[in-house]
Amino acid sequence: MPEPVENAEVKSPSYDLSKFRLKRILTNNSVRKSISLLGTFPDISETDDAIVVFEKNAYRESDVATPESPSEESPKKPSYFNANLKVSTEFVNNIYGSFQVVPSRDLCGVKSTVIYPATDKHIEKYSVCQKYLIRETPDLYQKITLPYLTSSQFSLEWVYNILEHKQEKERIVFEDADPETGFILLPDLKWDGRNVENLYLLGIIHKHDIKSLRDLNGSHLDLLRNLRQASKDAISKRYGLNPNQLRMYFHYQPSFYHLHVHINPVRNDAPGIWCEKSHMLDTVINNLELLPDYYQRATLPFVLYEGNKLLDLYEQEQPIRKVAVLSDDKEQAEQERTDPAATEGFSDVEPEERQCKRIKLATPEPKEAEATVQSCA
Amino acid sequence: MPEPVENAEVKSPSYDLSKFRLKRILTNNSVRKSISLLGTFPDISETDDAIVVFEKNAYRESDVATPESPSEESPKKPSYFNANLKVSTEFVNNIYGSFQVVPSRDLCGVKSTVIYPATDKHIEKYSVCQKYLIRETPDLYQKITLPYLTSSQFSLEWVYNILEHKQEKERIVFEDADPETGFILLPDLKWDGRNVENLYLLGIIHKHDIKSLRDLNGSHLDLLRNLRQASKDAISKRYGLNPNQLRMYFHYQPSFYHLHVHINPVRNDAPGIWCEKSHMLDTVINNLELLPDYYQRATLPFVLYEGNKLLDLYEQEQPIRKVAVLSDDKEQAEQERTDPAATEGFSDVEPEERQCKRIKLATPEPKEAEATVQSCA
Repeated sequence: MPEPVENAEVKSPSYDLSKFRLKRILTNNSVRKSISLLGTFPDISETDDAIVVFEKNAYRESDVATPESPSEESPKKPSYFNANLKVSTEFVNNIYGSFQVVPSRDLCGVKSTVIYPATDKHIEKYSVCQKYLIRETPDLYQKITLPYLTSSQFSLEWVYNILEHKQEKERIVFEDADPETGFILLPDLKWDGRNVENLYLLGIIHKHDIKSLRDLNGSHLDLLRNLRQASKDAISKRYGLNPNQLRMYFHYQPSFYHLHVHINPVRNDAPGIWCEKSHMLDTVINNLELLPDYYQRATLPFVLYEGNKLLDLYEQEQPIRKVAVLSDDKEQAEQERTDPAATEGFSDVEPEERQCKRIKLATPEPKEAEATVQSCA
Repeated sequence: MPEPVENAEVKSPSYDLSKFRLKRILTNNSVRKSISLLGTFPDISETDDAIVVFEKNAYRESDVATPESPSEESPKKPSYFNANLKVSTEFVNNIYGSFQVVPSRDLCGVKSTVIYPATDKHIEKYSVCQKYLIRETPDLYQKITLPYLTSSQFSLEWVYNILEHKQEKERIVFEDADPETGFILLPDLKWDGRNVENLYLLGIIHKHDIKSLRDLNGSHLDLLRNLRQASKDAISKRYGLNPNQLRMYFHYQPSFYHLHVHINPVRNDAPGIWCEKSHMLDTVINNLELLPDYYQRATLPFVLYEGNKLLDLYEQEQPIRKVAVLSDDKEQAEQERTDPAATEGFSDVEPEERQCKRIKLATPEPKEAEATVQSCA
């Protein structure tokens, strides 16, 4: 069997998935029903790491089809609803019943991704992602964030290509061409452009040089109000969606530094709508109405992931990853600091139990609590 | 076979799950891998509705266990990693491989819940939940929200019992007993209190009569700053969590009207952390620093679900559920309003195609786009 190496010219490695040997669980997401594993294929190599990710398949319509007429015995494609369904009753109480069922094997598919051999970078990507909250004061923005943005010089060529109709012209959903208050509405890459339930649009303003929220002031209120109203009208007309059911928000930090608003239906959990990252357009407008220089004076929270260079820059300014235990009771805090139990955490348990808990942290049993830890993948 | 009725004294209905006949899919959540179905059990009754919900099981550690020593053939409990694993390759490209795998049948369990007979209320609960965004101005708060809260008189007895140590005393994680700036920290009911990865605490203030965000003003800054710092210190000491990795926020509207802060690790997706519902404590403090009467002057967004009485009260004030298509071009808007295609939505497609799309909306194919529509369940 050939020794696999990370080289496009070499034949892809041939491993037997069933002979994977587990080293440890990297993440277990009980909401998504996915799990990432680190291990080896000892048949091929004792040392090369492999990452195996399982994610259960979502339901397709055909999985739950039933016969269309009484004469038809069962639907054409495999379905849960046939005599093969194994049912074990957990309880039946009045009108409520709880069961464990097992459908026929053709419906038990699991999507699996294997990375082999895996580097440390891959392992980090599929492990629990460390995130840190930064409280960005106006001073810290000027001193750290802004110079970083400027020096990294993210290219905005692709944005200007859209605004100038050089690219993606056919994807434009709506345009207001006014250079001061206008914008272009087009589908986000996360949306297939067809299923309105999952609608996800971006509104990219025509005006240049508004990098993010931070640059907004009272003089931009006309732009923002137009962005809000004209987007709602266009979406209502084209997709029949009630404007009161749309979520419109900015990310901070954004993924690119040319002001754009995210739009999706409020009944959906779109990615990245967390309160530490997303700012409702309504609230932004209202903040500027209350204080025209709100965003030049506000402390804005934002999240940095482990591996982001900006995190290192903030770490040089103030401790982010490692912070001392703070306390009004300095003596007690001092004592805790020298107590290994306290600094390692779990100060109320014995060392062995701590070790146990740490292992449990890495591999939570889904029945115990709903683990929704994210990997950086 | 007895006719099942919704009555505790009657024997629970005995249906054969495999003989379910589908009427329609109520929701299909491709993130959670769950699906809710409406149909009947024609063997028992042609008319009584049944709701069947399937949700694939999350992974347990034992599902992915592998032999601990080379001599051991396979792990004790059923696991993916044995010769029964069916693997079909989708592609292998260099170090990346994509497969569909099917484990042995004992690992294909699916949690199923059946409600039979189901009422219209049940059907609504398991259907796509309609949510509406309200922009609550200070006037609307005074005129609609506040009178509603006052008249509904949600009892806060259980909160006072906690604060007075009459109940749940053993669950208290930390207490600062100061009547003006103090609070009690205890586990939220969503947390098992053991797995620190999923930590979820509530900080309930001692001071009475601050119902929500709306009541906060500059005089509460000491309280809020103490809530922030003392919680972080307590959590750092007791659980060893880095204060920079904690998300602290208020819900608006809250589930009960005595001010409390939610605390969980920022790397987790806790329920309800959406930007339309959650307000970061850091931002609240900063808003009050910038404008002591910020929350008496701000327009605050919040979400109302179909079925909430407050939604009806707002609907009486302004159209929420049904809004006319707005447009700067009044004539065009007028025309669209009388055009059934426009009012039904999808104004750019033929009626039959519309019908198709509507069906697709109700039953999105997971392969097309990641549907994350929530039911009210």
